[in-house]
Amino acid sequence: MTEKLGTLPVARSIAALRRCVTAWRRAGEVVALVPTMGALHAGHLALIAHAAQRADRVVASIFVNPTQFGPNEDFNRYPRDEAGDAAKLAGARCDLLYAPDAAEIYAPDFSTTVSVGAVAEPLDGEFRPGHFAGVATVVTKLLLQAHPDIACFGEKDWQQLQVIRRLARDLDIEVAIEGVPIVREEDGLALSSRNVYLTPEERRIAPVLHRTLADVAARVAAGADPDAAAKAGGEAVLKAGFTKLDYLAVRDAESLQPWVARVRPGRVLVATWLGRTRLIDNEPVAPRNS
Amino acid sequence: MTEKLGTLPVARSIAALRRCVTAWRRAGEVVALVPTMGALHAGHLALIAHAAQRADRVVASIFVNPTQFGPNEDFNRYPRDEAGDAAKLAGARCDLLYAPDAAEIYAPDFSTTVSVGAVAEPLDGEFRPGHFAGVATVVTKLLLQAHPDIACFGEKDWQQLQVIRRLARDLDIEVAIEGVPIVREEDGLALSSRNVYLTPEERRIAPVLHRTLADVAARVAAGADPDAAAKAGGEAVLKAGFTKLDYLAVRDAESLQPWVARVRPGRVLVATWLGRTRLIDNEPVAPRNS
Repeated sequence: MTEKLGTLPVARSIAALRRCVTAWRRAGEVVALVPTMGALHAGHLALIAHAAQRADRVVASIFVNPTQFGPNEDFNRYPRDEAGDAAKLAGARCDLLYAPDAAEIYAPDFSTTVSVGAVAEPLDGEFRPGHFAGVATVVTKLLLQAHPDIACFGEKDWQQLQVIRRLARDLDIEVAIEGVPIVREEDGLALSSRNVYLTPEERRIAPVLHRTLADVAARVAAGADPDAAAKAGGEAVLKAGFTKLDYLAVRDAESLQPWVARVRPGRVLVATWLGRTRLIDNEPVAPRNS
Repeated sequence: MTEKLGTLPVARSIAALRRCVTAWRRAGEVVALVPTMGALHAGHLALIAHAAQRADRVVASIFVNPTQFGPNEDFNRYPRDEAGDAAKLAGARCDLLYAPDAAEIYAPDFSTTVSVGAVAEPLDGEFRPGHFAGVATVVTKLLLQAHPDIACFGEKDWQQLQVIRRLARDLDIEVAIEGVPIVREEDGLALSSRNVYLTPEERRIAPVLHRTLADVAARVAAGADPDAAAKAGGEAVLKAGFTKLDYLAVRDAESLQPWVARVRPGRVLVATWLGRTRLIDNEPVAPRNS
């Protein structure tokens, strides 16, 4: 019931996916899932490599989930290249591509929503209404479809990673959620499928983002006021040529609430625009006395 | 890790539950879960008997879930009798009681909600705000904690049964949801843990409820207008001495929306009060030309 794309086995249905995963688990093999929206880059391949280190079998899923895009967002123009993605996965240590149609994921009268409360409310929760409910619902479904032992997500989507950790814990899904560090270009720009949208001029400006985050994180770690440092960072980003700032904030790394208990890890998070392209990034802030 | 209540093994933790169920499933046994809030009566024992017919192993859970009670509802006075319940289960074909503490189910910062959309909105969804989100969330958790092959629910909570069917389908939970017919007293009163609240005078009036539902169902099946028949039924209930009517309605049996497509099964549903006690009941209406 699995077809092949090049040399890579592909499951198009939940039933085909489960047949593969069930056989592996019955054989005592540890299975990892790497959920993606395709348009794979070296950041995704780092997820596959991490998964392959931790598991005997690696399933990558590609599903551009319509419910996590807002009405004015880039669902229609989001880059899609299934054959290219399959070739990249075949060259990595991926055992199965799960690439379902939207009809396999959402019945016509689908109506259930998983929502995650406070951790999903600020930051991207504020600027992308409904986004995290879409993410939480589809990730719950993918985890329950595949039943992996491990699921790997990139730290670039830091708030998303916290949302997913929370839903897995709160709904008692038997899976270890693992975050994998951001992969960057040599100039510091975080890899993103959306980087292809950037014009050459925008691409030249883009590395300012990570330099600014690193600067804010260093200042705060050295004792600067988090809100003042974030404000200065936001101004620096706009001065460098970014056209709009959604937020640049220092938050508790796990709860995404204001970073009050500074013995806990902090995180600087940013969402900003270069023309039509929205870029996000984040950087750790070490807790005090750690 | 399981203790015993009388002769019945009891799991107090998710880990203890999973150890039992995993061992059974590894041995190729089919496992059924019967979620309850305790205060067991013959209706619950019919669920156990149904489960035992369909499965090799039967787990009953007892958890009085605080999140499905409204602030002015009967959470505190809801009847609790764990030792009596355990004796009843030991006398039925139950293999394990899962009776977790609230702390095992809800972490202090628990914040995830499963909500089910249109099927949960009318009727009890309107009169018990938040009730079905509480039910959907805890049932999702119980299903993912126990991983049963089958889960059995009483048809007395008809709308709840449709909510649970929907969440299991929409979230791709690998379980067969089975509804079990209502068990009634000889005079027609549906068994309910809340019947113990009734005074002798209220108990005398209570059987009018099912007689009225049966009458409405018969009239509608014979061609009467559903809304007119429901209205007459509601008036009859109040005239008989019920003190308040939340709703008496004829609905599509699956969607709980108005029963427009009368080739589909219909259902008459009622929620009404006798003093401080809220009673619900329901009755099928056969579709046309079936």
